[in-house]
Amino acid sequence: MDRIFAPYTVYKGKAALSLTPVLPTFTKLESGNGLRVDRRGNMMMKFWPAIGERKYDWEKRQLFALSATEIGAFISLGPTDSCEFFHDPSMKTSNAGQVRKSLSIKPHQDGSGYFISLSVVNNLLKSMDRITVPVTTAEFAVMKTACSFALPHIMGWDRYTSHQRPRVGEN
Amino acid sequence: MDRIFAPYTVYKGKAALSLTPVLPTFTKLESGNGLRVDRRGNMMMKFWPAIGERKYDWEKRQLFALSATEIGAFISLGPTDSCEFFHDPSMKTSNAGQVRKSLSIKPHQDGSGYFISLSVVNNLLKSMDRITVPVTTAEFAVMKTACSFALPHIMGWDRYTSHQRPRVGEN
Amino acid sequence: MDRIFAPYTVYKGKAALSLTPVLPTFTKLESGNGLRVDRRGNMMMKFWPAIGERKYDWEKRQLFALSATEIGAFISLGPTDSCEFFHDPSMKTSNAGQVRKSLSIKPHQDGSGYFISLSVVNNLLKSMDRITVPVTTAEFAVMKTACSFALPHIMGWDRYTSHQRPRVGEN
Amino acid sequence: MDRIFAPYTVYKGKAALSLTPVLPTFTKLESGNGLRVDRRGNMMMKFWPAIGERKYDWEKRQLFALSATEIGAFISLGPTDSCEFFHDPSMKTSNAGQVRKSLSIKPHQDGSGYFISLSVVNNLLKSMDRITVPVTTAEFAVMKTACSFALPHIMGWDRYTSHQRPRVGEN
Repeated sequence: MDRIFAPYTVYKGKAALSLTPVLPTFTKLESGNGLRVDRRGNMMMKFWPAIGERKYDWEKRQLFALSATEIGAFISLGPTDSCEFFHDPSMKTSNAGQVRKSLSIKPHQDGSGYFISLSVVNNLLKSMDRITVPVTTAEFAVMKTACSFALPHIMGWDRYTSHQRPRVGEN
Repeated sequence: MDRIFAPYTVYKGKAALSLTPVLPTFTKLESGNGLRVDRRGNMMMKFWPAIGERKYDWEKRQLFALSATEIGAFISLGPTDSCEFFHDPSMKTSNAGQVRKSLSIKPHQDGSGYFISLSVVNNLLKSMDRITVPVTTAEFAVMKTACSFALPHIMGWDRYTSHQRPRVGEN
Repeated sequence: MDRIFAPYTVYKGKAALSLTPVLPTFTKLESGNGLRVDRRGNMMMKFWPAIGERKYDWEKRQLFALSATEIGAFISLGPTDSCEFFHDPSMKTSNAGQVRKSLSIKPHQDGSGYFISLSVVNNLLKSMDRITVPVTTAEFAVMKTACSFALPHIMGWDRYTSHQRPRVGEN
Repeated sequence: MDRIFAPYTVYKGKAALSLTPVLPTFTKLESGNGLRVDRRGNMMMKFWPAIGERKYDWEKRQLFALSATEIGAFISLGPTDSCEFFHDPSMKTSNAGQVRKSLSIKPHQDGSGYFISLSVVNNLLKSMDRITVPVTTAEFAVMKTACSFALPHIMGWDRYTSHQRPRVGEN
């Protein structure tokens, strides 16, 4: 099966931001004909900085993978709401706590959109990055609509469909 | 066809709660090429209590199957609304009235989410169980979005699709 | 292909009401590989009166087929809005004007739901029928969610999908 | 694969307006099994003037292709909001700036719908066209619902679906 590359990307003065759904994987049950979600899906956000007019440095990209519940917070944001999520990519390893990522979404004061910022503090590399992308109300509406559409797919619920059940009850 | 296991589960201090869509089954019409809904679909809610830190007792799970109309009440809940549903799993049998289940959904006073509670009063076993799971606004948004997505599938309406109609009118 | 029977039905004291999507049909273009909508789809509403406790007279059913635009009015109804649609099933025939159907949707005064009424005045049969079904907020939410889901299918827009386009551009 | 013709069209006194989704095309990646969006999809709006009672002049049609982000602005319009988009069909050619198209959407003062207008100023032809179509609240609701449905397809996100992933993880 082909992998699909269809990110929704906004290019702004200081950075670019893209969203791409990542689907869950399934494992066959040992008992036979069943499939269980193995690795959960997410909404992958990628930020990368501008290095000139309409030029962006893909090598410096930073990633943040929204879980289903974080997508729920995202799509239920009201026009004056803000939210912030924290991730530790090294959780449950010996490097736990060394890298801290936080994603924040804050409305513009004039209601014309949102600032979406990713901060990455890396104690191992002694580095601290912060990339902010302003998005308009229209761009935010695309993100919310597309995330609402993608959420059931990320959860694996698009597999629950009658089309996949050719068997019918006895008459 | 493979059965799918992709519940949306929230694990909290005192209990866990999962949602899984259950699709309808169809029966072939005696008259020939037609399919009628036989057993209706539902949204299966499962509650099971915690028995220690991050440990849960699956054997003590209690189920509550939301009908299409109950899902309608659920997805149209406003931020300060509450609702309650009553089920008798023995309805229309000689044990009718012996077991009473009620599911209630109530908003937190500070607007930060909802309490979802299942009470099961079983006169046969002389038992009374009550399991409550607090869910955040974000988790509730996932549940509402996922239930809105699943509702037409639970009703069998995903079968009404042009893709399944290769026949076209004569030209 | 199998015809599908999966109506959403509410049974009330004086009458029952069901909704079923009817898909459009397509015609092949003379020019070759293209499909054009031939007969438009609709949302078929069926009303039939009660003739006793939990008994309904299917023979006395009355139909009203909501067009895409009428579905648009239906799904955008606010909690205190009402609407009314008029159909002449004999339009453009010699019997035009002899049968008049009107569907009205009005909110309960206490906000607990809606009255959905179908009136049929038939000058040929000298008959006048009026069937009213009260629906709860939850039932109305199911109808709105299901109609929103069905609307693109009724318009034939579910045919516009990348899955049906295995051809890709040259590389 | 068959091309699909299923526009949503409203015919009014002075002009007609239709909406049709245009899907993206995909290109195979050189590296092997992957597909990348090649040409983006859009929502094609077509306007053509009336030239008599129920007669319209298709030859004088004017087109405006809404991008994903413009669709986002469209579907997030509140009942009293308006918006305007500007396109230059000759952008990045030697004729840049010679043709200017603008689409505006403005609410009726009484809240009963919107005016949708397309202006085309063509300096090469020394022509200036303006076609306005009034749409009711119900028609606008169809357009918003249908555009919300179509948006993920236009973005190519309907390709991100578990159904297309028969491979499962090892057990």
